[in-house]
Amino acid sequence: MAVYTPVSADDLAAFLAGYDVGEAVSFKGIAEGVENSNFLAETSGGASGGGRFILTLYEKRVAEGDLPWFLALMGHLAAKGLPVPGPVADRQGRTLQRLNGRPACLIEFLPGVSVTEPAPAAAREVGVALGRMHAATIDFTAPRANALGPAAWPPLAARCEGRLAEIDADLPALVEAGLSSAAHWPQGLPLATIHADLFPDNVLLLDGKVSGLIDFYFACTDARAYDVAVTHAAWCFSHDGRQFFTERAAALMAGYADVIALEPAEIAALPVLAAGAALRFTLTRAFDWLNTPADALVTRKDPMAFARRLEWYLAATPEMMGGR
Amino acid sequence: MAVYTPVSADDLAAFLAGYDVGEAVSFKGIAEGVENSNFLAETSGGASGGGRFILTLYEKRVAEGDLPWFLALMGHLAAKGLPVPGPVADRQGRTLQRLNGRPACLIEFLPGVSVTEPAPAAAREVGVALGRMHAATIDFTAPRANALGPAAWPPLAARCEGRLAEIDADLPALVEAGLSSAAHWPQGLPLATIHADLFPDNVLLLDGKVSGLIDFYFACTDARAYDVAVTHAAWCFSHDGRQFFTERAAALMAGYADVIALEPAEIAALPVLAAGAALRFTLTRAFDWLNTPADALVTRKDPMAFARRLEWYLAATPEMMGGR
Repeated sequence: MAVYTPVSADDLAAFLAGYDVGEAVSFKGIAEGVENSNFLAETSGGASGGGRFILTLYEKRVAEGDLPWFLALMGHLAAKGLPVPGPVADRQGRTLQRLNGRPACLIEFLPGVSVTEPAPAAAREVGVALGRMHAATIDFTAPRANALGPAAWPPLAARCEGRLAEIDADLPALVEAGLSSAAHWPQGLPLATIHADLFPDNVLLLDGKVSGLIDFYFACTDARAYDVAVTHAAWCFSHDGRQFFTERAAALMAGYADVIALEPAEIAALPVLAAGAALRFTLTRAFDWLNTPADALVTRKDPMAFARRLEWYLAATPEMMGGR
Repeated sequence: MAVYTPVSADDLAAFLAGYDVGEAVSFKGIAEGVENSNFLAETSGGASGGGRFILTLYEKRVAEGDLPWFLALMGHLAAKGLPVPGPVADRQGRTLQRLNGRPACLIEFLPGVSVTEPAPAAAREVGVALGRMHAATIDFTAPRANALGPAAWPPLAARCEGRLAEIDADLPALVEAGLSSAAHWPQGLPLATIHADLFPDNVLLLDGKVSGLIDFYFACTDARAYDVAVTHAAWCFSHDGRQFFTERAAALMAGYADVIALEPAEIAALPVLAAGAALRFTLTRAFDWLNTPADALVTRKDPMAFARRLEWYLAATPEMMGGR
């Protein structure tokens, strides 16, 4: 949520000289993305077009070796007409660069605004967009393992070193119940290339339609129904996780079903998948919470917001989730 | 350099409803300004025009009582055709608002890029723009005292509580010499409404011309030659203050002289004014340095970069500074 690596006007001019987009007309560091440095650059135009771009410098949390895969996925989806920002190629056809010691990429700018209190209509559009994304990856066959899948959760819980109760007295038992549930993880569900982090701040909406799906840096190959479950957990509760919104959930599921009809085994697995999704965000937030000083300028995300979702999903049925 | 007060899509929609600029098409938090929260908003357009705006929420460092004066100044300069972002009025004609508990203002967006290594030609354009700004304030007669003028420096030094040597062994003696010099502050120099903080990051350039003067939140009524001195200190040295660039300085002074011919008393006073300017930034940076944890995510600005300028000015003549 800040600029970690500064880029000067001279740095930018030298970088843009490798592209056919013209010169910088405007350049602002933007507070977006979890742990990368992002800038909004407007250029005067060239043979590759002008207009607006996002310049991203990848900071430490993104593994450099994964970047070609992420950029290929974004390019694949953009080329298929999905509202996904495509990486821009320089004059030599390269998308992945280095700038000020960091891997860097110039990416299309997409209009739209992220909602914080989504109406059911917005949730439905997100369901449609998620289904289209999964459908569009059918010929994107390069695999990438989910580094934050079920196998990662027990060691992640262990790294919290028995300190979960420092966050909330209920948290240790909830994590334990989540791990027990995930031990019966469904196998053999249909795979897709999934976003795996489709929270409201990673979706841009314009005139009620999805104008952008962004931040693909957790994308991987995994069960498509798990991505539905992640999106369900991200979109269908109040921020603190205390309230479930039935209409949003029904709309999200209906939108997805407009594009992809989930199989009976996938629908049956939705509660355990969603409990897993809620556990994944509970654990990563808890780990960050325990390892971020309370007075740091970074806003710590409350692990309990997802522990409460976890609790809800552990008692849920597919019907309660809006599955059909 | 970050967003301190979040603004959601719903907050923004409610805020923009008071204006005739249409609805938000895009909305990004930007890393700009010293201590305020800034957002770049693009709107669909209305009777007051559409396009791009900066939404600023004023944080604690800006005194709320001063905001009407700052906004009036910006509006005055913009109305005179200077490249200054004008505050946008809502349907009731108001520019100063409240949003999420903070004073807030919607401000015109100006294109351009801030340079970090200014060429002499850029310095000349900045001199011209500064002169035009001073000339344009001749009928902006509302006064505002300079809260960071010479009277503020001895108490500011005292608030560093004898800890200046923790920053650098040379710093206590340099500050002492700066305070002695400022004790002979010139009186009776021609006044203007001055920017008082015209660093390169507060100037936008486009096609070699000044397209924006921004961040007027230190503006005040003071000697116009002091503003020239501040700008000289900000533009004519290497970042660390170790190297003085003669050509940049000559170009800056020549640009200003194209618009306003400084009087002999002003030219004679340039070294003491510039030593004072360098002392002012040395002291505010030193105070911040001593009161910011070393591991904070905020980048501390090096007080020595301006202490070295102070040392240079204490031995300078008007001719060495490029004054004529």
